[in-house]
Amino acid sequence: MKALKNKILEEGNVLSDNVLKVDSFLNHQIDPQLMREVGAEFASRFKDTGVTKILTLESSGIAPAVMAGLILDVPVVFARKRKSLTLSNDLYTASVHSYTKNETNDISVSIDYLNSDDIVLIIDDFLANGQALLGLLRIVEQSKAATAGAGIVIEKGFQPGGKLIRESGIRVESLAIISSLTNGKVEFLEEVLI
Amino acid sequence: MKALKNKILEEGNVLSDNVLKVDSFLNHQIDPQLMREVGAEFASRFKDTGVTKILTLESSGIAPAVMAGLILDVPVVFARKRKSLTLSNDLYTASVHSYTKNETNDISVSIDYLNSDDIVLIIDDFLANGQALLGLLRIVEQSKAATAGAGIVIEKGFQPGGKLIRESGIRVESLAIISSLTNGKVEFLEEVLI
Repeated sequence: MKALKNKILEEGNVLSDNVLKVDSFLNHQIDPQLMREVGAEFASRFKDTGVTKILTLESSGIAPAVMAGLILDVPVVFARKRKSLTLSNDLYTASVHSYTKNETNDISVSIDYLNSDDIVLIIDDFLANGQALLGLLRIVEQSKAATAGAGIVIEKGFQPGGKLIRESGIRVESLAIISSLTNGKVEFLEEVLI
Repeated sequence: MKALKNKILEEGNVLSDNVLKVDSFLNHQIDPQLMREVGAEFASRFKDTGVTKILTLESSGIAPAVMAGLILDVPVVFARKRKSLTLSNDLYTASVHSYTKNETNDISVSIDYLNSDDIVLIIDDFLANGQALLGLLRIVEQSKAATAGAGIVIEKGFQPGGKLIRESGIRVESLAIISSLTNGKVEFLEEVLI
């Protein structure tokens, strides 16, 4: 997605060979117009999958998810993050390790908002090692809902998450796939290779 | 705001005389169409104030804030919540106590995203004791930005936050003001009294 890639090139901050900071439009400050375009792109790519619900993870997934939900006209559920959760019959839960922050959180969704009639589109801001997405997929599995696939704003294609999850049969649509962050420079995977 | 009040009456869950749960459209599951209407209402009420930036608090403030930001065509910044924060010259910070959760969090905004040129509209999901809003106001103060006011989705008018903050001279626009939750019943303040 051209507008997104341009924004990443203009405003992204490469902190190391692994870490790209996009706090100016996605992870701390949010660009609502760009998020609408991102949401529209997700809606267009998944429009024929019969999506009944969007699932995302607080906090950075919410803006793109709500914009996609507005266009697809479906509710958005955000999974909550907690340091650790008391097990409850009212919740679907999964444990998610963040390599960036080196911490493990439990994520959860109330059983009231996902069930076996749902077709779920998962939306998240980043895909790197895939831990967050795997956690969200486990939650969908527990709810017995179907998965339409995953819409990712930025995928770090040089980390294993995307390959891992695509090989498990899940459709993953990433709007910008980064092939390298070496030497402080963002490079994207060519579209034709995706 | 009629559509919002109807939604609260239909789907709100009165847990006690003090606690209203609106997890089906605002705090866990999000209704994107309603959030667009909420955002449009905020945009309309503050359209002549020269807003340059919207400030909200993760996670439940993000959806209404992004919709207002889309219509006002300004960036949205969400303050981050942390259990406790190491002081940093790069952050504006404030300490916020939640009576509902009985916990205190530090909230913070990077100095990169608010400054003395900004006119800030604060948007949040709930106003009860006013602690979160006071924290956001302290952050705006630290940035030396001006405050256009606060847009609140649901105000619990029988709790002291709204009065406290209005009396300090801040304009507060709440789209639904609840006067009572006694006997499991939601009652709204009459519009004429606001």
